[in-house]
Amino acid sequence: MPDTPPPPTPDAPPTELDYSNLRALFINCTLTRSPKPSHTALLQGAVANLMRSHGVHVDEIRAIDHRIATGMSPDMTEEGWGEDAWPAIFEQVQAADILVLGTPLWLGEKTSVCTRVVERLYSSSGAYNDRGQFFPYGKVAGWIVTGNEDGVKHASMNLAFSMSHLGYTVPPNPDSGWIGEIGPGKSFGDDDGEGGKVGYDNGFTLRNVNLMTWNLLHMAAILKQRGGIPTFGTGMQQWNELDERWGTPPLADLVPEQPQVD
Amino acid sequence: MPDTPPPPTPDAPPTELDYSNLRALFINCTLTRSPKPSHTALLQGAVANLMRSHGVHVDEIRAIDHRIATGMSPDMTEEGWGEDAWPAIFEQVQAADILVLGTPLWLGEKTSVCTRVVERLYSSSGAYNDRGQFFPYGKVAGWIVTGNEDGVKHASMNLAFSMSHLGYTVPPNPDSGWIGEIGPGKSFGDDDGEGGKVGYDNGFTLRNVNLMTWNLLHMAAILKQRGGIPTFGTGMQQWNELDERWGTPPLADLVPEQPQVD
Amino acid sequence: MPDTPPPPTPDAPPTELDYSNLRALFINCTLTRSPKPSHTALLQGAVANLMRSHGVHVDEIRAIDHRIATGMSPDMTEEGWGEDAWPAIFEQVQAADILVLGTPLWLGEKTSVCTRVVERLYSSSGAYNDRGQFFPYGKVAGWIVTGNEDGVKHASMNLAFSMSHLGYTVPPNPDSGWIGEIGPGKSFGDDDGEGGKVGYDNGFTLRNVNLMTWNLLHMAAILKQRGGIPTFGTGMQQWNELDERWGTPPLADLVPEQPQVD
Amino acid sequence: MPDTPPPPTPDAPPTELDYSNLRALFINCTLTRSPKPSHTALLQGAVANLMRSHGVHVDEIRAIDHRIATGMSPDMTEEGWGEDAWPAIFEQVQAADILVLGTPLWLGEKTSVCTRVVERLYSSSGAYNDRGQFFPYGKVAGWIVTGNEDGVKHASMNLAFSMSHLGYTVPPNPDSGWIGEIGPGKSFGDDDGEGGKVGYDNGFTLRNVNLMTWNLLHMAAILKQRGGIPTFGTGMQQWNELDERWGTPPLADLVPEQPQVD
Repeated sequence: MPDTPPPPTPDAPPTELDYSNLRALFINCTLTRSPKPSHTALLQGAVANLMRSHGVHVDEIRAIDHRIATGMSPDMTEEGWGEDAWPAIFEQVQAADILVLGTPLWLGEKTSVCTRVVERLYSSSGAYNDRGQFFPYGKVAGWIVTGNEDGVKHASMNLAFSMSHLGYTVPPNPDSGWIGEIGPGKSFGDDDGEGGKVGYDNGFTLRNVNLMTWNLLHMAAILKQRGGIPTFGTGMQQWNELDERWGTPPLADLVPEQPQVD
Repeated sequence: MPDTPPPPTPDAPPTELDYSNLRALFINCTLTRSPKPSHTALLQGAVANLMRSHGVHVDEIRAIDHRIATGMSPDMTEEGWGEDAWPAIFEQVQAADILVLGTPLWLGEKTSVCTRVVERLYSSSGAYNDRGQFFPYGKVAGWIVTGNEDGVKHASMNLAFSMSHLGYTVPPNPDSGWIGEIGPGKSFGDDDGEGGKVGYDNGFTLRNVNLMTWNLLHMAAILKQRGGIPTFGTGMQQWNELDERWGTPPLADLVPEQPQVD
Repeated sequence: MPDTPPPPTPDAPPTELDYSNLRALFINCTLTRSPKPSHTALLQGAVANLMRSHGVHVDEIRAIDHRIATGMSPDMTEEGWGEDAWPAIFEQVQAADILVLGTPLWLGEKTSVCTRVVERLYSSSGAYNDRGQFFPYGKVAGWIVTGNEDGVKHASMNLAFSMSHLGYTVPPNPDSGWIGEIGPGKSFGDDDGEGGKVGYDNGFTLRNVNLMTWNLLHMAAILKQRGGIPTFGTGMQQWNELDERWGTPPLADLVPEQPQVD
Repeated sequence: MPDTPPPPTPDAPPTELDYSNLRALFINCTLTRSPKPSHTALLQGAVANLMRSHGVHVDEIRAIDHRIATGMSPDMTEEGWGEDAWPAIFEQVQAADILVLGTPLWLGEKTSVCTRVVERLYSSSGAYNDRGQFFPYGKVAGWIVTGNEDGVKHASMNLAFSMSHLGYTVPPNPDSGWIGEIGPGKSFGDDDGEGGKVGYDNGFTLRNVNLMTWNLLHMAAILKQRGGIPTFGTGMQQWNELDERWGTPPLADLVPEQPQVD
């Protein structure tokens, strides 16, 4: 493969795909409330701005600025909480074709705010789309992770699983991040002491900003154009409420024969 | 939503999608060599058989039966190993539209064999497809996890990340698994002592066998039919060798303005 | 080994160790506020009660009942939050020889409340004990994880790391948990429909309740009796403020000679 | 605390603890066979040499150089494997007071070799020490993680859990590591292009080399001097074979009263 010259590339996105009718929602899960600055907001903003430059409608939320209740019901005011910003945010989630979560790292882990947002997505997972599938079917998800030293992949593991488990499609390379050398140090976007900003010249981060943007856009456009993922075999409302099985037999009829395991 | 009756469902997969030209490769990463039985082989076989019943060509490999070398080169015989089964397996990987890894759990973790397979996929990640993208672009991935007590989601987190990072598309609900109550106990497919087999009547496992099968098939068929993921913004061979940037500006021009973070 | 008869065992804890002067703090990180019941409270209570039966002073907190602010300062009222219950809770943390975190599982992950408690422990990690070590030196930590289906070990991995990284000693088998067979189902302590309670007859959970209790008690008593962990090589206040190095040379003088890695 | 001057520190390790009779075993889980160099060997060697300088007997093994079989029996030659280096290595494990695993990172994960070593430790976990406890009781464990960009904490989470679950005591700060800025780049000990070696001047890594060494030595010496962890409540051979319960009642008698959880 290394000896093969690269194929020619198009100089514009495919015309049969429409990116301008896509909506993306970015939820920054920093621990820091506005108007204080956030390192994660900088990297998240880069991806958001690249999407905007291609006509995508992008909304950005900083979760900690909203009084999102804690718990496993779609609306925690029904469980005794005085207020809950989640139902309104969830409307934005449902309106978006693309969901991107952004999180800093503390002790190598995504933030408690990010965990709460994932919990609330899960608390709303009883919602079906209009085809009877879990609500994120036909939508795509990505994430952005920043820190000063370690944990981008660990946080990504959790988010890749959680998003696909909820029903989002996870395209290739759906994430970007920045961390520095191990130990305390500067974070993405800090002054580097030499007139520049930390991380802004990192070619790997730029590459992934580009990759995640286009993978999210292509996949969202492909799915949107074709009307989502086929219902056959995937409509869990039909599975749960109508006992629809699409011909899938019981496990006993599917598993192969083999000797008893010791 | 609970009050809305489910929408009617089709009684056949969409005719515009062709499933019969798909190829799937299942790699069972059990620690146990053939011909000894494998619990993971049973659940994996259920998904494989369901795919076969819809005309998909399915190959199943038990990795431990092959002398897959350890290391980070595509062919470790070039690094002094006497033999290496990986290059031949990698040809199967490249021929498949769908890759499914199966793994048991030990100490709540995927097996060393599964980790080795992921390492070797990574060792081959310098390969591009014929559009200049990472080799898994346009392909989809899923996984199967079995154990007697805990760890399905932990193993899934790692595999969801690794597969999407390599370049696979991860559709919604691309996995299935079985574990029993905490503590030592029987595994999937063991005699249950009452004339049945452990796990075969677990409705959640059956649901996920169905879901993972159809999500993998639908997504693979969608991507195959349209010729994969558009190259614009995603051709890393072009990025690396031709400095193609598709108009993506430097990070300094993408990040938003905000006050310096303290 | 299997052929060796077990050695005789003492019928009482070692008299040279004093357990009655130990203090333990349990922080239940359920998402559910009092007075609603909590499955985690049941298993946590079992360990707490076993400790109490041996004379240990035990306090139990349900974190969600307290207004613990979000952020990385020891007292977030100094960062603009109207209130912050953490500083008072941290006093209890510092008074305790044993810290046990309890968490349910959602999507296979510890709760957002648990993540927040870990963040706040980390936010207080600038505190030294009276020997100049990180504040948890000489203290021990354990955890309890409950859910209906999967994730005990995943949550344990994170907590084992976080606690030891903060400075707690993690004794052998410092945890217990309960989960049921994969899929939606009953949780620990639910009526089992047959006149009993789910999980109460699980021998593995009982074994681990016993093991974690005694490992925590033995290790806390050993460390307390000897006055903690020696300061030599471990006093980070001295390292940071006095440049004390205890004779440890630079890395360049410690690493072995070997050829340059390719 | 910041205002308190650091306490005076001893200029020698405590004389009541004997470090010179300790044995440590380091298992380097690099993917690279000897005599090729290993980045992990460099950092591991730094800790090993620091221990040696204090009179500790240290053995270092590179696991990939030994034909360690794959599987869950203590000796896989009894399961049809032609050879298995594990039983001999396990003798060294049992002879050591301190076990340190070293692993590189690939895709943010410990290596397959490291996973195999953990599996084999687990395969030997039926062994009791001479007090009837799991074999690692009274021993301590640490780890070293190196990579070029991300994953030290993720690998640490798994190893902290696995070691404590097996029965090792995990002291505070039992690990050290090095990674660089996100993206492909140099690894620990590579020529830095400016006459030095990458990572050798990282103060955080040096601090942790020092911390892990002394925490492992102190804890091993404390436990060795007192003859390990008391058997009361922790002798699982007695629990399993003699039904010894040390007065621990059934769970139903330990859990607190609370209303039924909804």
